[in-house]
Amino acid sequence: MRSIHIGMLGLGNVGQGVLRILAENGAAISNRIAANPVISRVLVRELDKARALEVDPALLTLEPSDVIDDPNVRVVVELIGGIEPARSYVLRALEAGKHVVTANKALLAECGEELFAAAAARGLDIYFEGSVAGGIPVLRALREGLASDRIDRVIGIVNGTSNYILDAMTRTGASYEQALAAAQAAGFAEADPTLDVEGGDAAHKLALLALVSVGVRVDPDRIHTEGITRVRPFDIRSAHELGYVIKSLAIGNFGGDFGESVGPQLRVHPTFVPRDHILAGVRGSYNAVEVSSRALGQSMYYGKGAGMMPTGVAVVSDIIEVCRDIVGFSEGGPPPGAFREIRPVELAPLDDLECENYLCVHVPNVPGVLGKVASCLGRHGVSIKRMNQDTPGPGEPIDMVIMTERTAEAKVRAAVAEVDTFDLALMPTHRFRILDADDPVGAGA
Amino acid sequence: MRSIHIGMLGLGNVGQGVLRILAENGAAISNRIAANPVISRVLVRELDKARALEVDPALLTLEPSDVIDDPNVRVVVELIGGIEPARSYVLRALEAGKHVVTANKALLAECGEELFAAAAARGLDIYFEGSVAGGIPVLRALREGLASDRIDRVIGIVNGTSNYILDAMTRTGASYEQALAAAQAAGFAEADPTLDVEGGDAAHKLALLALVSVGVRVDPDRIHTEGITRVRPFDIRSAHELGYVIKSLAIGNFGGDFGESVGPQLRVHPTFVPRDHILAGVRGSYNAVEVSSRALGQSMYYGKGAGMMPTGVAVVSDIIEVCRDIVGFSEGGPPPGAFREIRPVELAPLDDLECENYLCVHVPNVPGVLGKVASCLGRHGVSIKRMNQDTPGPGEPIDMVIMTERTAEAKVRAAVAEVDTFDLALMPTHRFRILDADDPVGAGA
Repeated sequence: MRSIHIGMLGLGNVGQGVLRILAENGAAISNRIAANPVISRVLVRELDKARALEVDPALLTLEPSDVIDDPNVRVVVELIGGIEPARSYVLRALEAGKHVVTANKALLAECGEELFAAAAARGLDIYFEGSVAGGIPVLRALREGLASDRIDRVIGIVNGTSNYILDAMTRTGASYEQALAAAQAAGFAEADPTLDVEGGDAAHKLALLALVSVGVRVDPDRIHTEGITRVRPFDIRSAHELGYVIKSLAIGNFGGDFGESVGPQLRVHPTFVPRDHILAGVRGSYNAVEVSSRALGQSMYYGKGAGMMPTGVAVVSDIIEVCRDIVGFSEGGPPPGAFREIRPVELAPLDDLECENYLCVHVPNVPGVLGKVASCLGRHGVSIKRMNQDTPGPGEPIDMVIMTERTAEAKVRAAVAEVDTFDLALMPTHRFRILDADDPVGAGA
Repeated sequence: MRSIHIGMLGLGNVGQGVLRILAENGAAISNRIAANPVISRVLVRELDKARALEVDPALLTLEPSDVIDDPNVRVVVELIGGIEPARSYVLRALEAGKHVVTANKALLAECGEELFAAAAARGLDIYFEGSVAGGIPVLRALREGLASDRIDRVIGIVNGTSNYILDAMTRTGASYEQALAAAQAAGFAEADPTLDVEGGDAAHKLALLALVSVGVRVDPDRIHTEGITRVRPFDIRSAHELGYVIKSLAIGNFGGDFGESVGPQLRVHPTFVPRDHILAGVRGSYNAVEVSSRALGQSMYYGKGAGMMPTGVAVVSDIIEVCRDIVGFSEGGPPPGAFREIRPVELAPLDDLECENYLCVHVPNVPGVLGKVASCLGRHGVSIKRMNQDTPGPGEPIDMVIMTERTAEAKVRAAVAEVDTFDLALMPTHRFRILDADDPVGAGA
């Protein structure tokens, strides 16, 4: 299979995430795009630095041109951050005819005009999914999924640090200072948190959301921005009493058909959000972007907004998209959208599925019935976590509610089947599986 | 600008939505893809049928080959629904060298193997974003945004009718029969709701989610499926008392590294969902899909899952993607990902922004202070909705909480500025804007 060489600038957290994802999911990725994306050169500041990930030393270089000017390199991934030297390197890479992938929101928000023009002049593209909301593919959703729609408004929780701090204040009653210190201790806030807590980071992201939503470029320094540093526990409590939670929102209104003179309205500020609003449930360092568009209405994109692996996912997905285009164009036809090789499979039986269960058994209120049901469940290996029943008059029907411990499906089915054969059973038992929210990988419901 | 001719099979709700979206957003779409997608022929069953949308009669035909065999048509959009004749038409379109866009989940879930093979054999592609969760670009997120990640689990609320009925039962205490009747009256359930309420529709969608998530094809008839018809008000109440809500979920577990012998575990059934889980907040006929993947962790995609315009958005976005590829390939280079023409704009000032506000004014408890603050707000045109204050001892500081009516930003700022000049003001007023959840298009916060 054909290899496509990728050069990388920077090997920090996200860079190491990119290498790890390519190493772990390489086979599946090649299956999608009929090519093998290979990181062939990485610019670093120190060759011998200790890194969490083992990296082939032959890949590393201290010399930018080893990456940018390597004729084998088709795609340059910029993960240095900040404006310079990232800007110069990206311009040089574009001049050398290479596509660029970056997660650098500050660079794009400040110098986007220059960089996009340089790319367009050479028929190249700049991919930047990782720059907003980490691995949540919200830019892709706006650019492609809603490409046919007219976007009126975006509301984003796009700064994980601010959301983490406000969420901690809401949950624990802590002051801003206490919550910031805890966030710093937990690695969710920088030693100097200014860019996050004063809203500057969110303003950069909002400028990029506006670019992708309605094709306008705005100066992020002109965006009205208020930080979260003045939010007090009193305000949080007042908000709660009034039915709200305080969230730092980045809001872009594009609804008025703004023309040459009046632009979109963009702002970042702490906001009272009604407690039953979908954004009110975005906890901790999670990010979310709610989009309002004419035809689709309201839609929402939610997930982890930062970090080595989440941002790595976005960067590698951009790499895949470039590679898919490169392969397709050189082969003269559009590449397949999904997996090239799709295999038919048999489904796994549910017998081994383990989950907690709600059972409602229908029997008359006669002495010994509870024991009979409980013993039957026990015989089948179904442990009871709790049991509730109304206390009706003697002989009247009982709705006996039983919550089980985590139990294998086959056991629950067998137990319920036997209970339903009892002479006493008034109707078939009602059973619901309980979602185990914390067990995505296991067999739980 | 170059036109790309599209043929459409069927002109029901979604078909009319497609025409409307292309008519309303044509200019923005052309700006994105440097081409003009034109619906040039539409297969209908009756030429003279009354339709909500005015359609040029010259577009309409009763003869399938007028659409499928027209050499100018590059893309065929299938919106007939059901298996036959949709399947035959799609096969004929692929044989004639045309890309296919469809929102027909039953067709793809039942005959996908045959159709995808026919497409691949000719270097064509089938696009089907509209087939799952309407306009929410969840298939695109899985296929592209998470292309680099390993997907362990998807949990979807993918049948709007079932969710609407269960939500109504939860909110009103209605029985299943009552809620179904109300859903039918409101247009959220068919006269024969079997496919929706028994889980068959969700099973079709789950099969497609599995295809796009991990590249496997499963027989939807083999998916374990339980409907919502046996859910009783008693179960809903029990769930509530125990901290859960009942949702009909389509669950795909891909976490075990299943090989040739053991496949993924797929099922559709009503489930107890913890009340603070993000899926518990999905109301009415909304859809949502939660994805758990190795690197990104949990992400969620939420929005309207059905209807003329939401599904139309997905279909037109697919049309845009095909057109973008057609243009790019004929011009020998990858087409731009976002808007071709990006214009710098000035931001609108916030002065005209209207929203409700929370103000907390800090003054000592001296006679007349409340009146002084209230009069000041009134002078600036700020109406007070409610006012709370603790009653501290005389002279002690008050945190005077004021909720305002919807007021223009400039007025609120001027009023707060004046209050803060009072000799009595102990510190600057705390102010938060309140999110107006229902006003995406207007100027509200």
